[in-house]
Amino acid sequence: MDVALVVIGNEVLSGETLDTNGKLIGTLLADAGFVVKTKITIPDIAGEIKNTLTQLLANYDIILMTGGLGPTNDDVTRNVLADYFNSELVFDPVLFDHIKELLKHRHPNLTIMNEQQAIIPKCASVLKNNFGTAPGLLVRTEGKILIAMPGVPYEVKGLMEEQVIPLLIKEFSRFKVINRNIRLVGLPESMIAGKIKEIEDSLPVHIKLAYLPHMGQVKLRLTAMGIDEKRILPELDALVSNISALLADYVYGYDDEELPATIGRMLKEGNSSLSIAESCTGGYISHLITSIPGSSEYFKGSIISYANEVKSKLLSIDKSILSTYGAVSEETAQAMSEGVRKLMNTDYSLAATGIAGPDGGTEFKPVGTLWLAASSSEKTITKRIVFYRGRLQNIQFFSTFGLDLLRRLIKGLE
Amino acid sequence: MDVALVVIGNEVLSGETLDTNGKLIGTLLADAGFVVKTKITIPDIAGEIKNTLTQLLANYDIILMTGGLGPTNDDVTRNVLADYFNSELVFDPVLFDHIKELLKHRHPNLTIMNEQQAIIPKCASVLKNNFGTAPGLLVRTEGKILIAMPGVPYEVKGLMEEQVIPLLIKEFSRFKVINRNIRLVGLPESMIAGKIKEIEDSLPVHIKLAYLPHMGQVKLRLTAMGIDEKRILPELDALVSNISALLADYVYGYDDEELPATIGRMLKEGNSSLSIAESCTGGYISHLITSIPGSSEYFKGSIISYANEVKSKLLSIDKSILSTYGAVSEETAQAMSEGVRKLMNTDYSLAATGIAGPDGGTEFKPVGTLWLAASSSEKTITKRIVFYRGRLQNIQFFSTFGLDLLRRLIKGLE
Repeated sequence: MDVALVVIGNEVLSGETLDTNGKLIGTLLADAGFVVKTKITIPDIAGEIKNTLTQLLANYDIILMTGGLGPTNDDVTRNVLADYFNSELVFDPVLFDHIKELLKHRHPNLTIMNEQQAIIPKCASVLKNNFGTAPGLLVRTEGKILIAMPGVPYEVKGLMEEQVIPLLIKEFSRFKVINRNIRLVGLPESMIAGKIKEIEDSLPVHIKLAYLPHMGQVKLRLTAMGIDEKRILPELDALVSNISALLADYVYGYDDEELPATIGRMLKEGNSSLSIAESCTGGYISHLITSIPGSSEYFKGSIISYANEVKSKLLSIDKSILSTYGAVSEETAQAMSEGVRKLMNTDYSLAATGIAGPDGGTEFKPVGTLWLAASSSEKTITKRIVFYRGRLQNIQFFSTFGLDLLRRLIKGLE
Repeated sequence: MDVALVVIGNEVLSGETLDTNGKLIGTLLADAGFVVKTKITIPDIAGEIKNTLTQLLANYDIILMTGGLGPTNDDVTRNVLADYFNSELVFDPVLFDHIKELLKHRHPNLTIMNEQQAIIPKCASVLKNNFGTAPGLLVRTEGKILIAMPGVPYEVKGLMEEQVIPLLIKEFSRFKVINRNIRLVGLPESMIAGKIKEIEDSLPVHIKLAYLPHMGQVKLRLTAMGIDEKRILPELDALVSNISALLADYVYGYDDEELPATIGRMLKEGNSSLSIAESCTGGYISHLITSIPGSSEYFKGSIISYANEVKSKLLSIDKSILSTYGAVSEETAQAMSEGVRKLMNTDYSLAATGIAGPDGGTEFKPVGTLWLAASSSEKTITKRIVFYRGRLQNIQFFSTFGLDLLRRLIKGLE
């Protein structure tokens, strides 16, 4: 089923706000087997909203709207709906009780504004919003469904999950939709496509494959749709396993598990600990590792050694290594990794040293040069990468490359 | 002047990608005095693109498009434009030379795909893309302007800044638009509004004020529009200075200078150095500091001390402090800050210890508890904040709070 989405918000058009609602709604709908076919972002002007409604009701059966349902004067959606559908505005006592209940702790004395939020177009029914005072509004017209939601992201999330998705599935969806993700790092999209071409070319019509690249990683998403879950599930499992076999050690995880979580899981499984020494990445690798809840179980700490004196003093790197090979070298990366592992007494360690840019490059070590090293009690492995896309992106990609080297060491792939 | 924006991308509709291009384009246009009046997101299907073009060309003079200009088969924009404007596709030798030059280092052997990128509709002229092989395309039709750009965010940024904005200003803008930003940290939006109410209420009609909150900071944007730059500039300068006077030491910087850059500038001005000790923020403060080009001039390094043994061994924190007061305490924050300053021999230092969550809180130290300390050779100042908004947001807000404490110490405000 196709869905049209209307985002009402001047602040989205002017670039002040990132439209995270659109992403969330698109994801939740896709997971439930619905497809957003168009998304129109407009200012909160009655005429614009009405024109957009006319245009969309002519072409779509399901229309979702966000924004313009708050308590202030510039929230026009409620009035526009009443006007558009020639419906009067009525006070909804059940809704008002819900609003009072929600505000009980925060504002014991209700204002006239809160009362106004219980006034809705007679043509609309209320979708209960457990996260805020503005309700979702559902209008049925000529076999079509129009749903208006407020614009606050966590209210949209609550309404979508609790009300809208169940309603749409009940009324429109005869199909089960099942998604599986295969997560890869270290292999470009085009090479992945080459390796799995045969499988991709022979996918059954009810299973789709999408390539989702992000920061040096690719997520392969398989989406299966059908009436008989018992038939789809084994089919999907077989595909995941065949594709994984072809892509072998580039696959680091499945479904929602991101790379730092994979590393965390592997470390916990081995009852192992980790330390990090960062130069050019300036703390970003440590940030990725510690973004995972519970990372204190395996992560002991890091040395961010920007200055050479920190490298030599804290990481015990021989000054002759720095003077002979330079701070950006295989020898320094190796010494950083081994130094931090000893210093923090961990099972594994990772080190990164390079030139993030925009300045600091030389003829033989251009901006974007990165040396990585990862150590265990048995060995240290190193890797050189040259990559340039601007300082911040370099830092982010460098960090992914580093995590991949560490993953390969822990997994015994190198 | 009103602008319509068309975002072509299945991955935006399905929620896989956040539409950062829309935000960027909206911001750059707003800064130049143009207003995005509608943004339509559609899949890369020829028929959909043509219908949208017909609809928008009837209502808007400036239409910007992103997406669908890459080298692969599903990039349809080039063909759609040729088709829509009844124009043939022609090979552009100048564009091909530019593509060759761009790929020289990466792929010395060009493929047929790269050649195809030099084929453009005859009705379009090329807007040079210095960041990728897909050019911007400009079509003029009946006094209207249509510009197609690729979808890669840093290519869109480059094309907008170098080509599109200058072109639109030259052709459409009779007004000078001048923006000034006042950047604040540590004061909520509502309190800022209270302090500057009188000025805000008496703003002249040609000057607008916007509040742009982000991660514990607020950017106040003054936008002046007029024909006579000589009159606007002093008016704007006076406003900036009057508002700054009312908000005093909450103002950290102006225009594009972000907080880590302000700190970098202050450190460079004082010829001072910085070290950091992070626990709960796990490297994110160091990442913010090192995201600034040239930060190696003042930043020596950090200790990320997740494990208590790292705190005591590397930062020389007395074990009795940790056992008496706990890792999340004023005493530990102070010892971390003083410890890292001595260890790295820097003029200033900053330390953060807290509970980022989602677990690990206690009755007296709930999740979201943060202790900060900042040290100079003269003193150490500390601050306690309790703030909870989920692990990742906590880490980001905690880091901003920490940078603000450091700024206040360097500036002599505390």
